[in-house]
Amino acid sequence: MEKIKVIIWGFGAMGKGMAKMLLLKKGVEITGVCDLNPEYIGKNFLDIISMDVDHPTVYVQSDIDFLLNQTKADVVLLCTDSFVKGAFDKIKKIVSHKMNCISTAEEMAYPHANEPVLAKQIDHLAKAFGVTVLGTGINPGFIMDLLVVALTGTMVDVEHIEAKRVNSLSPFGPTVMHEQGVGISLNDYHKRIMDNELAGHVGFKESIQMISDALGVKLDDFQQQMEPIVTNVDRKSTYGEANAGSLAGINMTGQGLVNGSVFIDMIHPQQIEPEMEGTQTGDYINLKGIPNINMAITPEIDGGIGTIAMCVNMIPHVINARPGLKTMIDLPVPRAILGDMRDLIEQDDK
Amino acid sequence: MEKIKVIIWGFGAMGKGMAKMLLLKKGVEITGVCDLNPEYIGKNFLDIISMDVDHPTVYVQSDIDFLLNQTKADVVLLCTDSFVKGAFDKIKKIVSHKMNCISTAEEMAYPHANEPVLAKQIDHLAKAFGVTVLGTGINPGFIMDLLVVALTGTMVDVEHIEAKRVNSLSPFGPTVMHEQGVGISLNDYHKRIMDNELAGHVGFKESIQMISDALGVKLDDFQQQMEPIVTNVDRKSTYGEANAGSLAGINMTGQGLVNGSVFIDMIHPQQIEPEMEGTQTGDYINLKGIPNINMAITPEIDGGIGTIAMCVNMIPHVINARPGLKTMIDLPVPRAILGDMRDLIEQDDK
Repeated sequence: MEKIKVIIWGFGAMGKGMAKMLLLKKGVEITGVCDLNPEYIGKNFLDIISMDVDHPTVYVQSDIDFLLNQTKADVVLLCTDSFVKGAFDKIKKIVSHKMNCISTAEEMAYPHANEPVLAKQIDHLAKAFGVTVLGTGINPGFIMDLLVVALTGTMVDVEHIEAKRVNSLSPFGPTVMHEQGVGISLNDYHKRIMDNELAGHVGFKESIQMISDALGVKLDDFQQQMEPIVTNVDRKSTYGEANAGSLAGINMTGQGLVNGSVFIDMIHPQQIEPEMEGTQTGDYINLKGIPNINMAITPEIDGGIGTIAMCVNMIPHVINARPGLKTMIDLPVPRAILGDMRDLIEQDDK
Repeated sequence: MEKIKVIIWGFGAMGKGMAKMLLLKKGVEITGVCDLNPEYIGKNFLDIISMDVDHPTVYVQSDIDFLLNQTKADVVLLCTDSFVKGAFDKIKKIVSHKMNCISTAEEMAYPHANEPVLAKQIDHLAKAFGVTVLGTGINPGFIMDLLVVALTGTMVDVEHIEAKRVNSLSPFGPTVMHEQGVGISLNDYHKRIMDNELAGHVGFKESIQMISDALGVKLDDFQQQMEPIVTNVDRKSTYGEANAGSLAGINMTGQGLVNGSVFIDMIHPQQIEPEMEGTQTGDYINLKGIPNINMAITPEIDGGIGTIAMCVNMIPHVINARPGLKTMIDLPVPRAILGDMRDLIEQDDK
C-alpha cells in the first residue's frame, strides 16, 4: 500500500507543527504545502522548518487550485481560519478534489452550532464527492467537549456539567498576545470590546452544543461573557508583558441553559504567567449526577501541541469514516499513532 | 419508531442495576429477563427490583432458548460471566437470533487478548447474522484503557503509560469480599493462590492489549503480579471485616513490555476502607511523552454504577455499528443518554 498522502494548507505555527509531527510518523508523506507568506513561497518546506530528514522535496505553493489539481492526497490539513464562513470555500475546493479534510477552525469543531446552513452544505458536498470533513483541535475538539462527553458515558444520569480550562498564554507568540489583549489597559480593553476587536476564546458555543447534542439534551439558551484579568504584579513572558494594573489576559465564561437553569458551565481564563498570582493551571471537569465525577489534568494539556496532535492523529479515522461532515462525537476516540499509519486504515470500507 | 427492545440475561447486581437504569430512560423497554435463581423465576422483574413504574410486566424466565425464540429484542445485555470461554456459547445463541449483544465479561472487553480464536469466531458469527457484539464495563472498558487511549490522542509521541486505579471495596457484597480475599490470613492467602482460587482483577491483559493495538505498538511481553494488602488496623465495611494482620484486599500490578522495558504500567489495589490507613482512592493516568499528561479522578469512578452505565449507554452505538465483534476503540465515545434513546439510532445504516 502506498504511503498516506497529506497536503498542508496554511503553514503557520499549526501547519508547521503538523509537518514536523508527520515527518516523525511512519507510512505517511507530505505531498503539498500551500501558504501565501512571500518568504515561504517556492522554498522547500523542510528548509523552512529546519528538518533534515529523508523526505521528498516539496516546494511551498501559493496557488491552491494548481496544487490541488497537480497533487495526489488522501487528506488536506486546513490550518487557516477560526470561523466556518472563512473556511467554507476552502473546504469546498478540497472536497471537490475528492480529498478528505481536517480543519483547525474552532467553529468547524461543531459547525452546526453557529453555521447550520453551511454545515449542511458541507455535509452534502462531502457525501456527493465521497469524502469526510472533520474539524478538531484541543479546544474545542477535546478538553471542554469530547472528554466531557466520554466521562458522562460512565454515568447513569447527569444533572450539571462544569468544564474549566485554566491555561497559561506564556508559550504563545505576538499574535496571541494581541488577540488576548495581554498588556493593554482597562480603557483599551473596553474600547476594543466596543469595536468588536477582541475575540477571546472561540468555541464555547461549539463545545456546549456538541455536549448537549451528544447527551440528547435540548438547550433553551446559550450565553457567554468576557472579563479582563487585571494583574496586581508586573508579569512578563517571552512575547508578552503586562504591568500591574493592565491585562494579563481574559477570562471567558459560557453557559448552556436547560429549563431556565445552567446545565453546562464553561470557565476558561487565559493569561500570561498565571503562577505569579497563585493560579494553578489545569483542565478540570466536574460532573454532578449518578455518580459525581471530578477530573483534573494538571498542568493543562498544551494547547498548541494538543491541536497539532489531534489533527494528525485523526487522519486514519477520517479516511476510514463514512462520507460526510463528521464531528468528534461521531468517530472512534482519538489516539496517538506510534506504528505505521497505514495499519490503521480499514481496507474493505469506503 | 418502536421503542428499543432489550433483553437482560443474568439478573444479579449488574443486570438489576441495568434494569433500573433502563426504566429511567425514554424510548427503550425491557422485553425479557433470564436468570436461574429459583427465587426470581416466574416473578415480574419489576417486583424483584421494587420499581413501581409504567412498564409492561415481564416474567423472569430460566429457559433462554424459549425466551430468545419468543421475544423481540434489538440487543441482549449479557451479565453472566467474566471469561470469554464461559460467555461464548451464550453469545452464539444471542447472535444466531439476530440480536446485538453487550457483554459485561471482563475478557470480552478485548477478547483478542486471551481468546483470539474465539474472538475471530464471534466476529464471523456476528457478521454472518448482521449484528454487533461488544464487551464493556468501567474497567476493563474505560478507566485503564479507553480513557488512556483518548488522552494519547492529544499527544505527538508517547514514551510511557501508567494507569492506576485505587478503589474501595467497601460498597460491595459478600461475593466480592470472598473473591478479593477480604479478611483472610496471609496463610489462607498463600493457600488460595496455590490452589488457583484467588482471581483478583480480571482485565489487565485486555486493557494493555487494547492500548497497544490502538497506538500501533507491538508488545514483546505481558506480565502481572498479585500482592496481599495487609491491614495494620481493624477495618470493617458493610459486608467485609479485616482485623489487623489480615487482608484488607489485593494489589494487582501488570506490565506491557516493548523492547524489553515497561511501556504500559498498571496498578490496581482494591481493599475495604482504604482511608483508614491514609490511602486516597482515585483513578490516575500519567502519560510521559510530548506533552506529559497527568490526570486524576478523585474519588475513583464507582465500579458498579460505572459498569451499569457503560453497558446501557453503549446500546445505541452497538445498534448503529457495522456488524461484527467490536471493542471500545472501534466505536464513538460513550455518553450519557438523557433524551429519547431512539433519537440516537441512525436510520439509514445497517
